[in-house]
Amino acid sequence: MDDLPKGFRAGAAEACFRKAGRDDLGLIVSDRPCVLAAMFTKNLFRAAPVRVCQEILASGREVRAVVANSGQANACTGDEGLANCRETQRLTAEALGLEPDEVLPVSTGVVGAHLKMDNWRKALPALVQSLGSRDAEGFTRAFMTTDAFPKFAMREVSLTGGLVRLTVMAKGAGMICPNMATMLCVALTDACVEREAWQAMFRRAVNATFNRVSVDGDTSTNDTILGLANCASGVAAMNAGDEKALEDALTAILDTVSHMLVADGEGASKVIHIKVSGAADDEEAELVARSVGHSQLVKTAIYGGDANWGRIVTAVGYSGADFKPEEVSLVLCGIERFRNGQPVNEEMEAELAERLKAKDVDVDIILGSGPGSYSFKASDLGHEYVSLNADYRS
Amino acid sequence: MDDLPKGFRAGAAEACFRKAGRDDLGLIVSDRPCVLAAMFTKNLFRAAPVRVCQEILASGREVRAVVANSGQANACTGDEGLANCRETQRLTAEALGLEPDEVLPVSTGVVGAHLKMDNWRKALPALVQSLGSRDAEGFTRAFMTTDAFPKFAMREVSLTGGLVRLTVMAKGAGMICPNMATMLCVALTDACVEREAWQAMFRRAVNATFNRVSVDGDTSTNDTILGLANCASGVAAMNAGDEKALEDALTAILDTVSHMLVADGEGASKVIHIKVSGAADDEEAELVARSVGHSQLVKTAIYGGDANWGRIVTAVGYSGADFKPEEVSLVLCGIERFRNGQPVNEEMEAELAERLKAKDVDVDIILGSGPGSYSFKASDLGHEYVSLNADYRS
Repeated sequence: MDDLPKGFRAGAAEACFRKAGRDDLGLIVSDRPCVLAAMFTKNLFRAAPVRVCQEILASGREVRAVVANSGQANACTGDEGLANCRETQRLTAEALGLEPDEVLPVSTGVVGAHLKMDNWRKALPALVQSLGSRDAEGFTRAFMTTDAFPKFAMREVSLTGGLVRLTVMAKGAGMICPNMATMLCVALTDACVEREAWQAMFRRAVNATFNRVSVDGDTSTNDTILGLANCASGVAAMNAGDEKALEDALTAILDTVSHMLVADGEGASKVIHIKVSGAADDEEAELVARSVGHSQLVKTAIYGGDANWGRIVTAVGYSGADFKPEEVSLVLCGIERFRNGQPVNEEMEAELAERLKAKDVDVDIILGSGPGSYSFKASDLGHEYVSLNADYRS
Repeated sequence: MDDLPKGFRAGAAEACFRKAGRDDLGLIVSDRPCVLAAMFTKNLFRAAPVRVCQEILASGREVRAVVANSGQANACTGDEGLANCRETQRLTAEALGLEPDEVLPVSTGVVGAHLKMDNWRKALPALVQSLGSRDAEGFTRAFMTTDAFPKFAMREVSLTGGLVRLTVMAKGAGMICPNMATMLCVALTDACVEREAWQAMFRRAVNATFNRVSVDGDTSTNDTILGLANCASGVAAMNAGDEKALEDALTAILDTVSHMLVADGEGASKVIHIKVSGAADDEEAELVARSVGHSQLVKTAIYGGDANWGRIVTAVGYSGADFKPEEVSLVLCGIERFRNGQPVNEEMEAELAERLKAKDVDVDIILGSGPGSYSFKASDLGHEYVSLNADYRS
């Protein structure tokens, strides 16, 4: 379909892994070998598909396909889980006439549950037959779990040699605090790239986007982001300008999709944009940004539209960062409420409450006069999160 | 009143700091000088009363009184906040015929709001007049905020020389992740103790109790725990056996009250008892216990009675602790569901769901065969937490 880069086809099928009446098995195939870049969760309990994809990445080989399921995450499932994962690789490769290690498996859903292999096998013929019938949205829908909407984006980039296309498809709503990658994300391009350059560009773009968002601070066992470049456009980055254009486009599209992830944080109603500046270095700024973005009290106050800025300052204070309290200032929705360690503009409360009704809430924290800064996006915390997660499996 | 140790009197008054119709200013006075032990928040934004109490502790002087208010925390209030705090010390001391630095001020409530000094001054005569009219519960009620019930306990200890009494009064429902102390807690005893021994015993007891509980992971700006020993019983710890008896009693009573704190975590319906063993050392075990106790996904699942044990294992995996995934086991409510990195006892799901209905939920995590262990108590996360915190100030 025409929102995928050249040479890629997508398909999906209903395997009834958890519920009937929806696609829950998706497939992407490139008609030629792809250069692979990828990043994975830092959770020590790496899901079976994470381990398999890491092996493929380490081998340096080119790949052809991604097969994705929702329903069972195939994490914490031991040897049986790993065997099941390899079996899905083998069966997919057989049906497509590929080698098993040209197929990248990704899974999402309940941690600790085994893949329903009978369902998987039964759905495979329909999945392969569906190739070419789904667009980016169709593939994305197949690996949604509690996502309220599919998250994907497409972008064209003009390089010296012509146009190339980037398409990114992601899922994620809960257990989201990516650490080197998000829940599941597949980025496709028909540009021609070198393996090392692609991986380096990919890592920088992910660190600037997916690794700076959080819904609930829970880093999943399955976080995987794959980048497949198949050169079907015949267009390569020929010079530094081209490389910058491609990386900028990749960063921009990953930023767009990672924003969707936060906006659809389970039950989230708002995106909190946290910017920390004036820190001794970027690491100190990051500590502060993450502490504020993970604070349950900050997230519930912003959900409720309560201008309780003292909770933000409190989270700055226990972040573990080193700073002088008397040099700290806070600007909330453009209104300075705390300057050099003292409350200011108390008469702006009503105006601030008004501005807090917006979907996007800006939190700017100035720690001092140092060069360090960091930005981070977090979702708020509301009743819908509790409802969704209190009984997710039933 | 007879649930306070000898020589202590308590009083309370209505100052209308936030709402009318309740006591919100409390006072404790000892009829003789007290040896002081204390621990305070590690939050860099220390509230004005925290800074004042720290000065008094550092001076090594004996103290006579504690004055506590709810409504405004007097934190992040700069120079004006500090001046207000010292003024409350001065006025209280004047009314009681004491030195200002014999009066320990503690505050709780909204961070960033100034103390309502006019209300404070107006309420002082009634407060002083009320001395002797309140028991431990009466004082505790005066510094409650969102607490659903007052948290206090009394205990008698038999030493070689006779009976001594311990009374502990605490408040705390949200912004609870004590780091070296809880939100606000006052422990009184009429035992005779040496300053260094009392402080050492106190620190060990707090580290074993209050520093091992969490409601929401937010460490407040005001956490303060004070221990006042006035020797009114005339009974001293005369030997190692006495010292152990006194410390054991102190630890037990602080454990009782810190358990109340978690049970009354804002909107909490359950207490999660996390025990980690088999770690390389206690620090690694602590990382795991805190990671599980702070996981929003674990807390919401347990709120909902969902035996979604994969979320617990996931939180173990991203804790930052170092261990071998294939050596990890998990026992939930007495049922082993994960052994050496693999799911077991899947047929016990229904029984497990039944056991999860209890108010107290046991989570036992065995990381390997090392000597390190740690225990931690956390509350669950439900709709009531969101409701209470989404619009706390209005």
